[in-house]
Amino acid sequence: MSQLEISCGLDYITTPDLQACLTEALHCNYSFIVSPIVHPRFRRQYVTNVGKTGGFTRSDMVLSPQDWTTRLVGKLSPYLNVDSASSTVRQRHEDCMNEELSYCRGLGVPAIMLTLHGRDTNNLARILQTYYETSHHISLIWARVPMVCNKMLRDHVDHEDNGDSEESWNETWFWWSKFHERLEWDKRVGVVLELSADLPSEDLLKRWLGEPVKAIIVPTSIFHNNKKGYPVLSRAHQQLVVNMVEHEAQVIVSGARRSNIEFYLQYLYRLWKRRPNPADDPMLSYARGWEDYLQTPLQPLADNLDTHTYNVFEKDPVKYDQYQKAIALALTDLQKLDTQVHNKDASILDAMVEKKESGQGDSDNNNKKVFTVMVLGAGRGPLVRATLNAADITNSKVKVIAVEKNPCAVVVLAAQVREVWRDRDVVVVPGDMRQLNLTPKADIIVSELLGSWGDNELSPECLDGAAGLLKPGGISIPCKYKSYVAPISSPRLWAAAKAASTGTVTSKDKNLETLWVVYMQNKHDIAETKEVFTFEHPVKGIVDHNGQEISDYRGLPLTDNRRSATISWEVKQDNVMHGFGGYFDCLLYGNDIISIVPSTHSPGMISWFPVFIPIKTPLRVEKGQVITATFWRCVDSRRVWYEWIVEVGDRTTPLHNSNGRSSEMLL
Amino acid sequence: MSQLEISCGLDYITTPDLQACLTEALHCNYSFIVSPIVHPRFRRQYVTNVGKTGGFTRSDMVLSPQDWTTRLVGKLSPYLNVDSASSTVRQRHEDCMNEELSYCRGLGVPAIMLTLHGRDTNNLARILQTYYETSHHISLIWARVPMVCNKMLRDHVDHEDNGDSEESWNETWFWWSKFHERLEWDKRVGVVLELSADLPSEDLLKRWLGEPVKAIIVPTSIFHNNKKGYPVLSRAHQQLVVNMVEHEAQVIVSGARRSNIEFYLQYLYRLWKRRPNPADDPMLSYARGWEDYLQTPLQPLADNLDTHTYNVFEKDPVKYDQYQKAIALALTDLQKLDTQVHNKDASILDAMVEKKESGQGDSDNNNKKVFTVMVLGAGRGPLVRATLNAADITNSKVKVIAVEKNPCAVVVLAAQVREVWRDRDVVVVPGDMRQLNLTPKADIIVSELLGSWGDNELSPECLDGAAGLLKPGGISIPCKYKSYVAPISSPRLWAAAKAASTGTVTSKDKNLETLWVVYMQNKHDIAETKEVFTFEHPVKGIVDHNGQEISDYRGLPLTDNRRSATISWEVKQDNVMHGFGGYFDCLLYGNDIISIVPSTHSPGMISWFPVFIPIKTPLRVEKGQVITATFWRCVDSRRVWYEWIVEVGDRTTPLHNSNGRSSEMLL
Repeated sequence: MSQLEISCGLDYITTPDLQACLTEALHCNYSFIVSPIVHPRFRRQYVTNVGKTGGFTRSDMVLSPQDWTTRLVGKLSPYLNVDSASSTVRQRHEDCMNEELSYCRGLGVPAIMLTLHGRDTNNLARILQTYYETSHHISLIWARVPMVCNKMLRDHVDHEDNGDSEESWNETWFWWSKFHERLEWDKRVGVVLELSADLPSEDLLKRWLGEPVKAIIVPTSIFHNNKKGYPVLSRAHQQLVVNMVEHEAQVIVSGARRSNIEFYLQYLYRLWKRRPNPADDPMLSYARGWEDYLQTPLQPLADNLDTHTYNVFEKDPVKYDQYQKAIALALTDLQKLDTQVHNKDASILDAMVEKKESGQGDSDNNNKKVFTVMVLGAGRGPLVRATLNAADITNSKVKVIAVEKNPCAVVVLAAQVREVWRDRDVVVVPGDMRQLNLTPKADIIVSELLGSWGDNELSPECLDGAAGLLKPGGISIPCKYKSYVAPISSPRLWAAAKAASTGTVTSKDKNLETLWVVYMQNKHDIAETKEVFTFEHPVKGIVDHNGQEISDYRGLPLTDNRRSATISWEVKQDNVMHGFGGYFDCLLYGNDIISIVPSTHSPGMISWFPVFIPIKTPLRVEKGQVITATFWRCVDSRRVWYEWIVEVGDRTTPLHNSNGRSSEMLL
Repeated sequence: MSQLEISCGLDYITTPDLQACLTEALHCNYSFIVSPIVHPRFRRQYVTNVGKTGGFTRSDMVLSPQDWTTRLVGKLSPYLNVDSASSTVRQRHEDCMNEELSYCRGLGVPAIMLTLHGRDTNNLARILQTYYETSHHISLIWARVPMVCNKMLRDHVDHEDNGDSEESWNETWFWWSKFHERLEWDKRVGVVLELSADLPSEDLLKRWLGEPVKAIIVPTSIFHNNKKGYPVLSRAHQQLVVNMVEHEAQVIVSGARRSNIEFYLQYLYRLWKRRPNPADDPMLSYARGWEDYLQTPLQPLADNLDTHTYNVFEKDPVKYDQYQKAIALALTDLQKLDTQVHNKDASILDAMVEKKESGQGDSDNNNKKVFTVMVLGAGRGPLVRATLNAADITNSKVKVIAVEKNPCAVVVLAAQVREVWRDRDVVVVPGDMRQLNLTPKADIIVSELLGSWGDNELSPECLDGAAGLLKPGGISIPCKYKSYVAPISSPRLWAAAKAASTGTVTSKDKNLETLWVVYMQNKHDIAETKEVFTFEHPVKGIVDHNGQEISDYRGLPLTDNRRSATISWEVKQDNVMHGFGGYFDCLLYGNDIISIVPSTHSPGMISWFPVFIPIKTPLRVEKGQVITATFWRCVDSRRVWYEWIVEVGDRTTPLHNSNGRSSEMLL
């Protein structure tokens, strides 16, 4: 994050000499300027499709091509009202807007700024869709909205109705959100938020952080002068600016120059440098550059992992410590149990012998029970290491059996046994844990087969298939895990999923029926995170009418890893739902937990990004409405997949991923 | 319609000997039977995926393949509740249902009947989607619902709350509608409506007629015995049965046999034969076989029409009569005007001469003004004929100039001039009316360039382009036309549009952004029909700041045929909107109108079916909500197209057909 720079632009009401304005701004270290496309006082003739003479704006020779395409945000004439109630005005302004858009297209400006004035933007959105349909070079559209609807705020004040001014703040979010919806959440369309002197509640600010805010406009009027006469911002504004820039917003200084224009920029730079350093969080450092970048989930069962992936996983500073603690605890518990059994079995005679031996460490150790620990899916050995460490710490004797199906990883494991674990009892068994029959059976099974959404890398199926390797009463680490979801708003993630290239014809539907692993930044939680599916190991098998566990042909308990879960949330604030954030937590053993659920995230653990689970049709939700989601985990002989559906009041999304048509995990 | 037969089936609660049941039913002239797939008392073992022994139902040898695939509707076990609150029950019943579905798939029954018990059908719909995803042979799904929710009705009665029992009738429509929505309005899924002893309001019955009712179940209990002891239905039930069968529903007789089972069938046959004969309406006869069949609108400007199309058009028994009347009226008016002018100009001397001439018919006729009538787009000449007839009737002298761009039609016209109109003043001019410069100019221009949605075959552009052919003050027939829309519910039309094959990759979106010409039968009007766009001829040109008409380079008035219109409707009844019915009416001249707007449809006029304008995402609407639609008519130098968007409360459809990407009319 610390590498990230603040990028500032300067807004001009009018630019009679564009080159001079740009030179001034660059001289003061601004990165770009915002300039009207045509002179504010220029009015065009009524009918534009006849007898045009010459250009209606400046020549494109005044700037270099490089400056046009990197230094200039073009502002459409703010008086244009293409959604006017008058059809004449509407048509005329539409012609003017098309003229200005066409000029922008010709110049290749990086972004076009326009101003939203209300909720009714049907025609504006329509014109912009046509602009995108007909343009090869694509400018971004920046839609400027004030943070608060001043008209509504004034009405409230007039009626001495200050208490419920919240809707004045809600209103302008609506302008933007409806506009963006009409453009089908196009990722080329972003919002430019004009900060107000007063700021709304924290909840409202957080919702803006879920929107694609391309820039914030900081009017010079909200600065005040400090003792030395320099312009500064209030604490609340400082925080907001920093938050926005952390979410990749640029900053535009706008309005009357009450100070030297350089001072504003210098202040913003200082503000940015002074901010609390987030680099202390290993996750933030690790995730830098991966923000909102969608990845297909791994399928470590169907595909073998590569060296790079192992490297990344093994570097996790937290996960293997947790495993080591859990294994140590399990060994301790087994020792206790063994001692109890031993004591119980022992005759009084034995008790006397025991007394004698208790003084002799070595012989004690020799007689100690050796616990068999199987590491299922050992990879290149981190859990073998954790097991050996745990044995050392607890002074236990262990025989470690490392089962691994990936031939490349087996090579590494074998080398480790020869070179590192020479004097330890470590055996490498190549093969699929679901198909092996080993002796002795394990006292402890250790595995790390969880995906970002818990069971989504088929840990339940793998461990059930390996259940025959565990002694009755043996311990599985992990012993329980749960998946979680929260409904989220994120035009950015949704648009990214929709547009993600998968090389198939039906890609649009496919991509919105798929789980995506992603470090989510530009999103907003509509409601709290709730549990979905739970799995436990060793599994309790299905029982028959008489309460007897049913076994399959191998004698393993018959399990059913199909699940369905229906979850409901009450909406606290008007919003648009684009999908879910998905997480998991996992009880390794005892009370040793690893978690990527935001509220309980294991500090510093970097092995998992969350998942984004999109819905095909974003749902607009109102405060007080109830979102109900149903998830199914489906299993057939060949694969596992999820299906899901969301309902709000009478509205229903289509069923997602019916029969696993778009995404599945292969068994 | 009279060819249409009533098709009746017989419902069996249990079929211990399937062959015997079928034989009995066929013997009584029923066409098919409805039979449970497994015996009602058969319960399967708890866990179905182990140790299955043998079939769970009868052998498929009991019927011939032909009978299985044409004579049998299979009923799934009615007790199956795959949306139970208990996850154990849910899972177990899901397994049972899959087993029964799989058996149906094997047998190839034409339809599978299941019963809906409530609104919650998420899992049921999911299972059926999977069934469809995994089946090659496709059975129809028939979802049985009662007309009224008896439980709710009883609750009302218990609370002596008879007044508002409407929701008991609304409720079961909801069961069906939500279920069908969850299956994305799949056209293979239909409803089987079980008639109740009492019937709901007319509005509620009409809404059912918009649903794909595959069959109605007529319980024997709603029959009563007439004087002779034969089972008969009440008047209201008779009407409902006839309406449903006209909408292609089959009839299933069900329940205890209080009479000989043959009698029910005989009664239904008599009922059907006795119904008012609809064959008197030429439109109904003409449209037979075309019900709900989608056609792409013609593009007579871009493509030349073929002989078959001309044949159909020329057979319209009403349209050319109306034209003839309008032309006659126009000629009369012109004569009057001419007489007035003549009288005004005439000196007293002339008045004397006139007196003398008035006795001499022939010489009077010779001096009469000859009116030039141009038929623009003459085709094979029906409007030339209408003009000549009108001249005869009004005793006018006309010179007819027939302009036609289609070379094949020109050949026919020329032949007609040689053979039929030898002694009349008819000139054929081949060419595009927009590019011709003819003398003399016309007193009257007659054209028939309207499509099902009025301007959608580019009549405005053609007539504006031909404006130079008309004398100042001349008459255009037609002189004014309007397009209309009404929001409609029609799962059938929507599914047909969605599935229509257009041979392109993006066909789904394309088909739902296109106007379809269709004789709509299986639909329901959500609200009344309202005006959209209006065009008048001769057109009033655009005026400049000084109120002067602006001319283009040819001296024609500059016109703007772009339009936008926003229309709102209040919803009277809970429903689902799938698109619009589109219509037009047209003022030919005076008050001579042709119309395909349902409330004012010109009786017997068959030239136009309406259009169906789909929306991409069907919208569920509640009583009292407001539907707001905006339509744009867009024009560029090459083509014309429509765009549209619909809003209900906070919900917005995507913009349809942005920049004409999916459908357009070429200029």
